Amino acid sequence: MTDRIRDFLRVRRELGRDEGPVMVLDLDVVRDNYTAFARALPDTRVFYAVKANPAPEVLRTLAEMGSCFDTASVVEIQMALSAGATADRVSFGNTIKKERCIARALQLGVRLFAVDCQAEVDKIARAADAVKVAREDVQVFCRILCDGAGAEWPLSRKFGCVPEMAVDVLEHAYRAGLNAYGVSFHVGSQQGNTEAWDGALASASMIFRECAIRGIHLSMVNLGGGFPTRYLKAVPGVESYGDAIFRALTKHFGNQLPETIIEPGRGMVGNAGMIEAEVVLVSQKSDAADEVRWVYLDIGKFGGLAETMDESIRYRILTDHDEDRTVPCVLAGPTCDSADVLYEKTPYPLPVSLAIGDKVLIEGAGAYTTTYAAVAFNGFPPLQSYVI
Amino acid sequence: MTDRIRDFLRVRRELGRDEGPVMVLDLDVVRDNYTAFARALPDTRVFYAVKANPAPEVLRTLAEMGSCFDTASVVEIQMALSAGATADRVSFGNTIKKERCIARALQLGVRLFAVDCQAEVDKIARAADAVKVAREDVQVFCRILCDGAGAEWPLSRKFGCVPEMAVDVLEHAYRAGLNAYGVSFHVGSQQGNTEAWDGALASASMIFRECAIRGIHLSMVNLGGGFPTRYLKAVPGVESYGDAIFRALTKHFGNQLPETIIEPGRGMVGNAGMIEAEVVLVSQKSDAADEVRWVYLDIGKFGGLAETMDESIRYRILTDHDEDRTVPCVLAGPTCDSADVLYEKTPYPLPVSLAIGDKVLIEGAGAYTTTYAAVAFNGFPPLQSYVI
Repeated sequence: MTDRIRDFLRVRRELGRDEGPVMVLDLDVVRDNYTAFARALPDTRVFYAVKANPAPEVLRTLAEMGSCFDTASVVEIQMALSAGATADRVSFGNTIKKERCIARALQLGVRLFAVDCQAEVDKIARAADAVKVAREDVQVFCRILCDGAGAEWPLSRKFGCVPEMAVDVLEHAYRAGLNAYGVSFHVGSQQGNTEAWDGALASASMIFRECAIRGIHLSMVNLGGGFPTRYLKAVPGVESYGDAIFRALTKHFGNQLPETIIEPGRGMVGNAGMIEAEVVLVSQKSDAADEVRWVYLDIGKFGGLAETMDESIRYRILTDHDEDRTVPCVLAGPTCDSADVLYEKTPYPLPVSLAIGDKVLIEGAGAYTTTYAAVAFNGFPPLQSYVI
Repeated sequence: MTDRIRDFLRVRRELGRDEGPVMVLDLDVVRDNYTAFARALPDTRVFYAVKANPAPEVLRTLAEMGSCFDTASVVEIQMALSAGATADRVSFGNTIKKERCIARALQLGVRLFAVDCQAEVDKIARAADAVKVAREDVQVFCRILCDGAGAEWPLSRKFGCVPEMAVDVLEHAYRAGLNAYGVSFHVGSQQGNTEAWDGALASASMIFRECAIRGIHLSMVNLGGGFPTRYLKAVPGVESYGDAIFRALTKHFGNQLPETIIEPGRGMVGNAGMIEAEVVLVSQKSDAADEVRWVYLDIGKFGGLAETMDESIRYRILTDHDEDRTVPCVLAGPTCDSADVLYEKTPYPLPVSLAIGDKVLIEGAGAYTTTYAAVAFNGFPPLQSYVI
């Protein structure tokens, strides 16, 4: 919670404009986060993961500070360019791309692409020919699987291939005349273990050596995201991650350090945003005294809090009654969908005096909230958002 | 798949307008479904659950045929009224409502409200006073918990209270001067067991008797939704549900049958809609011959297929290669979100010849798709929708 957000919410209430949940994001925090990343990893280029929060003000602020951008789609590329980034500062980091989207990205000037199989390499080569971009000007990096141990939102096997296959994929790119540029991985979102990069860097170093044996000289390691934001538990500072990553890089690459990039999303904007929501109902399922209490908010899984899926992300919730004793509550959203329950397996302690009509503040809500909101489920509008 | 949808998709392709996934819904099927419900339960009023698909054309068609509407929010109430329904044909069926939303609904003429606790009854009484509606004109029904056994999308304990508490809630409404009108329950969405209503109707009958002892004469049983649509497995016809429900009603209420309503959503529009999507990538995670195949579509969990959550709803998928032998595939969406995987625990058999760029047809996609779509996650636009 920052003073600027507190003031904004106070004025919004005084003006009677406080209808419906809202996410407010403080750009000062984003600036501080960017500076911290740049300092913690001084020789690493920062590619902000646009999907975490694509608000134009966030992108403009980061573009001005020198950030590069990791994008998932043509629309996100266009947003990054509109925010003032040049195309050489944009990576098309989604391993799943339509060939016509790759062609469009090339036309927009993007030259850095993620792949995790030969079929995706072939698409890039064909798309380059189609839009008359020299294949050797197109940089391709191959994503490898990573076990994600230690992450709170661990990644599935959806992206990446095994390291041995990555060597073949990069050779395939090289033989197709593309620039076989490097390796990427992702240690899992909200990664609490600063040492989590070590194993993946060992694999990356192996891929560099195997490719060198085949005459292919890779240049870059994309260290991905995973940098956490604070929810309920304290998380290590960015500088701890920087130190640990630098140690692992030196351990595995010796004095031939590769070019590196990082892709923070949650770590860049998570703690900059806060959601204000309203308690719609407090009830019990029976009159029994020991019956668990249900608290229903006007925001839920389909209104922006999708990351509560399987109770993965556990937000810090502030109320005006936080000095009071707490009782374990099931926390749920406002829709008629039975799956719209935020915390039930592990009930959430909330003040016994929390009542219908009270506002609650959900901290660490700057990332992966606004764009996850459903377009109109149950007639509820998407999450409002203000960047200040 | 209907001929009308097939023709529409063919013309869309011929015009080169087939960019991005699309849901196409055939109103003729909706009309047939409405007629089937009306025939199967001739003495029951049909309240279409707007949340399943609030497309204006669907609401207008159903309003013309005489349907009533079950709504989850003020916006859905306004949509039902705009479609031509009078306010006496609208139920505010969400048990979680802001007091100011109840007041707005009353101002719009709605008089039928769901509750599941005394606090919600109090809101309704206060709201009626605030907008000068006589309390006795406001009908309140209390939702009870139901175990949902046999349902493919079983309900949580989010809505409803235990039957014993419902008696107290209805007495509370009665003493507040509201019209204590009846009982509702929901046997679980995509309910395959036609006998599932029996247990809940036993509870409803008990509540009617207990209330009568306290001098309160209830009138109505809201039988909820749960009527399935066909996905992979065949489901019983609507007439089987009608027969089973009538038997259960007679068993528990004898010759004093209450007024009844049903709230079909999925059963009304599910089989009327089909999604056309595109294969973006087919790949493996390693070169091993027995490695599972991954198929990535341009629609996923955040683009409209939210009901694949926990692999609950398993859609029927048609391709142009359906005579070919199939291989088990992991099916995933196009976003950079690792949770955007549709079927992995139980892989989905797809033709071995299915290739990048192929179109696939997802059947039974008329309900709970368009409105679940995220507003802009990863820069992907919400699901396009055509009602024909």
